[in-house]
Amino acid sequence: MTLEEALQRLLQAVQPLPLTVERVPLEEADTRVLAEDVVAALDVPGFDNSQMDGYAVRVADVQAALTADQPLPVTQRVAAGDFGVSLSPGTVARIFTGAPLPAGADAVVMQEEAQIVDPPPGAAQQPAHGWVRLTRVPDRGQWVRRRGEDVACATVALPAGRWLRPADLGVAASLGVPQLSVRRRLRVALAPTGNELVQPGAVPPQALPPGAIYNSSRYLLVPLLRRLGMEVTVLPVLPDERTATERALAEAALRFDAIVTTGGVSVGEADHVKPAVQALGQLDLWQVSMKPGKPFMHGQIDRTRLGGQGACPVFGLPGNPVSSFVTFVLLARPALLALAGVAPASTMPSPLRARVAFDWPRPDVRREFVRVRRNAQGELEVFANQNSSVLTSVAWADGLADIPAGVTLARGDEVAYWPLAAFWG
Amino acid sequence: MTLEEALQRLLQAVQPLPLTVERVPLEEADTRVLAEDVVAALDVPGFDNSQMDGYAVRVADVQAALTADQPLPVTQRVAAGDFGVSLSPGTVARIFTGAPLPAGADAVVMQEEAQIVDPPPGAAQQPAHGWVRLTRVPDRGQWVRRRGEDVACATVALPAGRWLRPADLGVAASLGVPQLSVRRRLRVALAPTGNELVQPGAVPPQALPPGAIYNSSRYLLVPLLRRLGMEVTVLPVLPDERTATERALAEAALRFDAIVTTGGVSVGEADHVKPAVQALGQLDLWQVSMKPGKPFMHGQIDRTRLGGQGACPVFGLPGNPVSSFVTFVLLARPALLALAGVAPASTMPSPLRARVAFDWPRPDVRREFVRVRRNAQGELEVFANQNSSVLTSVAWADGLADIPAGVTLARGDEVAYWPLAAFWG
Repeated sequence: MTLEEALQRLLQAVQPLPLTVERVPLEEADTRVLAEDVVAALDVPGFDNSQMDGYAVRVADVQAALTADQPLPVTQRVAAGDFGVSLSPGTVARIFTGAPLPAGADAVVMQEEAQIVDPPPGAAQQPAHGWVRLTRVPDRGQWVRRRGEDVACATVALPAGRWLRPADLGVAASLGVPQLSVRRRLRVALAPTGNELVQPGAVPPQALPPGAIYNSSRYLLVPLLRRLGMEVTVLPVLPDERTATERALAEAALRFDAIVTTGGVSVGEADHVKPAVQALGQLDLWQVSMKPGKPFMHGQIDRTRLGGQGACPVFGLPGNPVSSFVTFVLLARPALLALAGVAPASTMPSPLRARVAFDWPRPDVRREFVRVRRNAQGELEVFANQNSSVLTSVAWADGLADIPAGVTLARGDEVAYWPLAAFWG
Repeated sequence: MTLEEALQRLLQAVQPLPLTVERVPLEEADTRVLAEDVVAALDVPGFDNSQMDGYAVRVADVQAALTADQPLPVTQRVAAGDFGVSLSPGTVARIFTGAPLPAGADAVVMQEEAQIVDPPPGAAQQPAHGWVRLTRVPDRGQWVRRRGEDVACATVALPAGRWLRPADLGVAASLGVPQLSVRRRLRVALAPTGNELVQPGAVPPQALPPGAIYNSSRYLLVPLLRRLGMEVTVLPVLPDERTATERALAEAALRFDAIVTTGGVSVGEADHVKPAVQALGQLDLWQVSMKPGKPFMHGQIDRTRLGGQGACPVFGLPGNPVSSFVTFVLLARPALLALAGVAPASTMPSPLRARVAFDWPRPDVRREFVRVRRNAQGELEVFANQNSSVLTSVAWADGLADIPAGVTLARGDEVAYWPLAAFWG
């Protein structure tokens, strides 16, 4: 199965959680999923205003003054936050960036194009702010930001299903919205498997028993899930016994919205997760043609058999930390975001293109996601050890190069490139 | 001044905070800045182990068995977490992914390349786990992950000054490190200026006074700063009066590590921030040749004049929300990260290259950062309204196209492209 097929099947299988709406202050809404459209209750900007420090003018008056070689009287001063009076014909207003354009004005002249001058000889009036001589006739609308130019009143500024980022909060603020309706956070259980796993701190390195290894995937996946705006609970390592595994997964299915397991889904005999999920619901064990990343398991635990409602999706990641990272970001992450209510089209970043600074002489039968980092020239350098157990490759890398199955590469060839930042952020 | 010059001057002016070390659990260390090198106290992996489910073998035995057309006895079974016994000559061990290679074994054969068979006629021994026939002689070391291959004991696995991300936490965990020494969080004051600013929620949109606007930059900058691992305090809007502005900035300089102001740094007469910073220390008002982004202010408030120690950097962002966003991510963000102790070379993401799906017929005298979004073909579409007050352009965009000064573009031309994800994450 290709990665795209697997992802499509996952996104079809996953239904967003039933809508539970929470109202949160704007400052707490980062990374949450918008539950309702944000409809603008005003125009942004709310009034025509100046984009520059300068003078609000009538174009015709500037034209006339230039023809007559005369300065113009500055009869008012409008700062941001002020509101001027209607501009009398033949006068201009001193104006500052963001300040409302006085009625009657139809352009702004930058102060760099204006000279403060003495009153013309015999001037009848004594304007409050002196006289200016303008050097050029502006276009109508010059340096004027029009009412509603950014957001028009009654239009949808942010659609439901949006995964909120800082700029969205800025947009909501600009509309005067102090709180947002968001979906509740997804509650994810992380269930490691593997007798060999030891928690850092439980045993010092020098006392690590033979064959034991520290659990590293957990410490990578917990912050990744939190960055998605999800609540993560780490379950005890699943027992190496079928009935107990089934019991632990059944309990988790009733308490959480989704379960992510690591390890224990290989074709090895010691795996109890697969039969447990099968017994509790439905299992799809996929041979997704990607490297690292084999095997990836997707299943559903049927809560109705357990006295609950609906189904709890289970995502089974491989035990090797690089494999679990790659399958997490390319498969589980988009599915979890969709479950959290993010519009499916926004759950997956799209790759860029970049040139490789290495040769890739041996094609693989599987599509390969190679840990790479851009050099000063923007070309991709490859981490020397692409073994899927070598987690330092991910810490070193700034992205994944996506090398199609059966393909060789020479230095300078272009590949699809997935920046890791797209998965962290 | 070019952006690169401005950034270089900023990074030179900013010294990392004096080192204050906090010990935090691994699970709380995401986005923190590492204060001390993490040195490996063990090899990762700690033992030669299998990369596959299959059989641990001696290559010479497989060679001999194939030549004699004989199966091999499976005398032990080693799962992950187990530790086998030394492999007797002429035998193989059933082995699973991650399990330690028994002493004497020098390769692993995948189970797909092994057939479980009946005992050979007249077999003297009765091996505990039956017999297998292998189909191919493996290379020495095949599917064996060597001790120390990922991280060698006593080497620096993560250097001080690293801005920690999920993969780093996984690496630390793999070394058995339960806590990390990190620098204390940077304390940043956000000080908006502008009489026209109203907080969302303070006044409903229909009651917004003429000339007033909602403060949006704050709601964009607060989550951006938090995503950097910093503590943000929003100060009251700076008063539109010189002495009071000076007092507010002096107080903030004593309480915070850095001050970020928005607005009030234009060349307009109503600006009190510039003279206040000048009076309190030193001011650099830069005309950085970029659009949006003019003007950007950098200064230092001298705390020794206020009874404190050292200097407090001030970053003055323009008032328009797009300008404040662009100057924040391209100038203030790297400087703040350096202040927080991040190695300067890691404070700024590097741009990628992408093709534009638009024409850009009118060159600008300034380098321009245009809000763009990649289409299905990976080409950059441009947001129609590039006015620096239009914050919806940033919410719509997935990146900034970096168009050099004086340049025109035709569809299909390549530009530097800064994915926004690199700034969110």
